[in-house]
Amino acid sequence: MKQAPTQPVFVLVRPQLGENIGKAARAMLNFSLDHMRIVAPRDGWPNPDAGPAAAGADRVLDQAELFDDLESAVADCHFVVATTYREQVMYKEAITPVEVTRIARNRLSRGERTAYLFGAERSGLTNDEMALSDATLRIPVNPEFGSINLAQAVVLLGYEYFQSNDDTPPLIPGHPDGAATKEAVQGLIDHLEGELRPRGFFRSADREETQHRMLINLVENARMSPQEVQTWRGIVKTLTRQERKDN
Amino acid sequence: MKQAPTQPVFVLVRPQLGENIGKAARAMLNFSLDHMRIVAPRDGWPNPDAGPAAAGADRVLDQAELFDDLESAVADCHFVVATTYREQVMYKEAITPVEVTRIARNRLSRGERTAYLFGAERSGLTNDEMALSDATLRIPVNPEFGSINLAQAVVLLGYEYFQSNDDTPPLIPGHPDGAATKEAVQGLIDHLEGELRPRGFFRSADREETQHRMLINLVENARMSPQEVQTWRGIVKTLTRQERKDN
Repeated sequence: MKQAPTQPVFVLVRPQLGENIGKAARAMLNFSLDHMRIVAPRDGWPNPDAGPAAAGADRVLDQAELFDDLESAVADCHFVVATTYREQVMYKEAITPVEVTRIARNRLSRGERTAYLFGAERSGLTNDEMALSDATLRIPVNPEFGSINLAQAVVLLGYEYFQSNDDTPPLIPGHPDGAATKEAVQGLIDHLEGELRPRGFFRSADREETQHRMLINLVENARMSPQEVQTWRGIVKTLTRQERKDN
Repeated sequence: MKQAPTQPVFVLVRPQLGENIGKAARAMLNFSLDHMRIVAPRDGWPNPDAGPAAAGADRVLDQAELFDDLESAVADCHFVVATTYREQVMYKEAITPVEVTRIARNRLSRGERTAYLFGAERSGLTNDEMALSDATLRIPVNPEFGSINLAQAVVLLGYEYFQSNDDTPPLIPGHPDGAATKEAVQGLIDHLEGELRPRGFFRSADREETQHRMLINLVENARMSPQEVQTWRGIVKTLTRQERKDN
């Protein structure tokens, strides 16, 4: 991979199960990431168990690059972060997924490549492998129950990376049908009051002002769409029918 | 669960595989969350496949509360967010994990309970179940490869919840008087329907289901305070009075 990086690379170091490689591929593609590297997989490569677990993310597996050792796998990388569950033997700065995301994006903007390392399922990364990294990842977890599996660590890192992207589609602002105009809302309030008044809802001129304000507030608080205003008006109309159609 | 809430509840709706319930429990406990509710699990409860998949999070399974239907599972909840992968049939505000976390923490600080709903593995949540929710969760993902499994959605929500110590006010502010419980809201819906039915609001058995769902949605969208529910009930009562006090 000699061209300029466009995203972080996910490096699986001595993964044991093909199924886990597939799950990691799926989790990566969920967040539009597809640069996977595999270092010395226990059962060789390709692995027939990977495809089914990828659930459609075959592209990630097909493009995965195979390496004999970690050193060559990270040779073209500029910043390497190790995910590890083991007690740290040597000191490395511990950073959160949010921080590593900021670092990866910042490096990328300078044409630098970041690698996320994931150790073997049982044993994690060796001390030599750890030594190749710039920092360790610290996912904030329950200190008494902190074991997270490979695919879940990939999901968290992918999620942070993807959502930090300025191209993430924005929140749907408000009701897609649009908000009702104040005129429509006022029409509903007038309608309601017109039906409530002859039925004795407003107990005294004294209290009417307070009750009137409460009603406006009540209807405004519902933040209705134009259609919802119409539906409420239909409901009021139905409720005030004199003739009951049953009994 | 009558004591004040201390964390959001994770509600698994009609889960199919015990293994997935176990994985969800494990993912919850990774982030110190242990309030699980299970609605009508396909293979009954307890399920022998759940324990092994929980990988030590048995406490979450042991404390899980079992319900026959979603309505009773969320009766004591004040804000309900649905995770769904289906095309939305009805409008609900779509919010991100960050946003829902802010809402949940904000509600909690006022003694209000938030529920995260997870639908059945294949079919997701029904329209009736969706109608009971205040918002849908939108996890920012690759639009072309967005299917995330149950345990991974739980991991993302748990992670956001655990790592947030964020006092930024939520986008959807709760009512300053507090939110009505789902039970109170359901009471208003029942009251409304009880008055609408004899007046011919439901035009045919065929359309009744759609109209019923529309009504639930309409009332849920208004996000009422307990006082507002009472006021609406007073309004319905007044509107349905037979005797007009004037002319």
